[in-house]
Amino acid sequence: MITIDSPLDMHLHLRDANMLKIVAPLSAKSFSAAIIMPNLVPPITTIEAVISYKNRILDATSKYNFEPLMTLFFQDSYDFEFLQKAKKHIKAIKLYPQGITTNSANGIKSIDSKSLQMTLSAMSELDIPLCVHGESDGFVMDREAEFLPIYEDLATNFPKLKIIMEHITTKQSVELLNKYDNLFATITLHHLLITLDDVAGGMLKPHLFCKPIAKRYEDREALLKVALSANEKVMFGSDSAPHPIDKKESCGCAAGVFSAPIALQALAELFEKHDALENLEKFVSLNAQKIYNFIPNKKRITLKKIKFKVPSQYADIVPIFANSELSWSIVA
Amino acid sequence: MITIDSPLDMHLHLRDANMLKIVAPLSAKSFSAAIIMPNLVPPITTIEAVISYKNRILDATSKYNFEPLMTLFFQDSYDFEFLQKAKKHIKAIKLYPQGITTNSANGIKSIDSKSLQMTLSAMSELDIPLCVHGESDGFVMDREAEFLPIYEDLATNFPKLKIIMEHITTKQSVELLNKYDNLFATITLHHLLITLDDVAGGMLKPHLFCKPIAKRYEDREALLKVALSANEKVMFGSDSAPHPIDKKESCGCAAGVFSAPIALQALAELFEKHDALENLEKFVSLNAQKIYNFIPNKKRITLKKIKFKVPSQYADIVPIFANSELSWSIVA
Repeated sequence: MITIDSPLDMHLHLRDANMLKIVAPLSAKSFSAAIIMPNLVPPITTIEAVISYKNRILDATSKYNFEPLMTLFFQDSYDFEFLQKAKKHIKAIKLYPQGITTNSANGIKSIDSKSLQMTLSAMSELDIPLCVHGESDGFVMDREAEFLPIYEDLATNFPKLKIIMEHITTKQSVELLNKYDNLFATITLHHLLITLDDVAGGMLKPHLFCKPIAKRYEDREALLKVALSANEKVMFGSDSAPHPIDKKESCGCAAGVFSAPIALQALAELFEKHDALENLEKFVSLNAQKIYNFIPNKKRITLKKIKFKVPSQYADIVPIFANSELSWSIVA
Repeated sequence: MITIDSPLDMHLHLRDANMLKIVAPLSAKSFSAAIIMPNLVPPITTIEAVISYKNRILDATSKYNFEPLMTLFFQDSYDFEFLQKAKKHIKAIKLYPQGITTNSANGIKSIDSKSLQMTLSAMSELDIPLCVHGESDGFVMDREAEFLPIYEDLATNFPKLKIIMEHITTKQSVELLNKYDNLFATITLHHLLITLDDVAGGMLKPHLFCKPIAKRYEDREALLKVALSANEKVMFGSDSAPHPIDKKESCGCAAGVFSAPIALQALAELFEKHDALENLEKFVSLNAQKIYNFIPNKKRITLKKIKFKVPSQYADIVPIFANSELSWSIVA
């Protein structure tokens, strides 16, 4: 048996409307709080939209003790005055390169410290973390590595800005973490478990297709090393990203792995397998508290080594590990 | 307008039963002859099975002037006596590493010149070409490159054996062609057109998923260079590999691109775009005649620059370029 105080999912897609009502309770059951991604259509770019979205999430999760940590969709027009007001309502701002993933058409075209000077200076001064989907528009296997110079530019020019490299997938990203005090990263469950071989090495597996795409074995090893040792630069962010089954098993499958309902159980299994259970709470809670400098709402989750059969679907969404058996269950 | 005498598809999957009846006429309409892959379930390993499969193909294509060039599924038990008898009925023997692609469970586990000495010596003496699906069981993007030392071993130890590197996808394979007189290659339509970015860089595209998987831009460039110049070491082999739509758009999508019905039209478009139309006949017919040392049945195909809308499906099979428009049509 293990207990985890206030498990946190530092990168979560809850979508909206019906989908929100299906998936939000599944996260709220396992987690104490979660960083909520703002890439709705249209994206969350105003304080009113933040408040309204937060209320819809609270409505959908009213049965649970769960705090949605809200974010704004980065715009280079955000100024100090706006951000000062926004700060009360958000935990971070998420920057998307234009067109790089689901609902990122309104993202930023040129990402560099000069073009984004006004907004990043204000965020730095106001201590608002910058979360980044770090991919170039290059060849799919190279996109993350190609983006690293941009992280270096931002980290160097805004040394007090906390920069979160979201859902890192490569050993190069892991190595970069050590170079800058103000660089941090989230790591997903699936990137700790799969490589491109699982997505496209045997049959093609749409439910394991995500952005950034899973990489090589040596990349997964590098991610595992920092996650299992609960390196203080990294924290758990599921990037759980639901799509209805007809958008996944189709002639053009949308990117996103749905993992929220089984993430803690699968992490327990993974950390136990590697004799690292004692680090799990750091990876899924304490590290994030330090990086984001906050105290989450109290909620104790207990897992026991009881077999858990993952459902084939949650409503019309197929989770990772559908129909397979995990060795840990959440019991309270 | 262009005419091509006896277009040849030197790597084709016609399957069996109902599927055969759907796809065989579509190939027979465009091509004069085709090398027919033997990976049925069970695989084609006897002379009786070759004759019987050939007759089923002839039945399905009786409306057309089309010659199925039959192959056996490689087994290391084939001896000189058997192969001497088989030679009258086959054009080549296809070697699959075990478990590497569709219906290859009965493939060969250890591929090297010593283990396969008896069969390869006999094939060499009898001048039966060896067609190889050249992939290791390593990381999906490295499998073809990792297999190259096996080609080198076979090419060195059986210098008179014609070895066809099937459906090559990498610049390393293109480079290897120059090193050994007895190495040749087929190249598919889709590997001249797509990279991994098309399969998994935007939405995930099951109908572009195949084995070997499409690689990098520099690989496609290397393939284009030898194909468009009709380098005498390479020839067209579509590797057209139909699966019903429910096996493609599903939670585990089978590997294979269905291209046969539109291959010649798309090749004409590609070669025209690169100002290489004068080399098309070499790539789709003459090179193969030289490599395999045979004269195909006469059949003249005429293509005209008339727009051709690719159907969304042929029966329950989705072709590459479904619903899009090609600029060339077959007119006779």
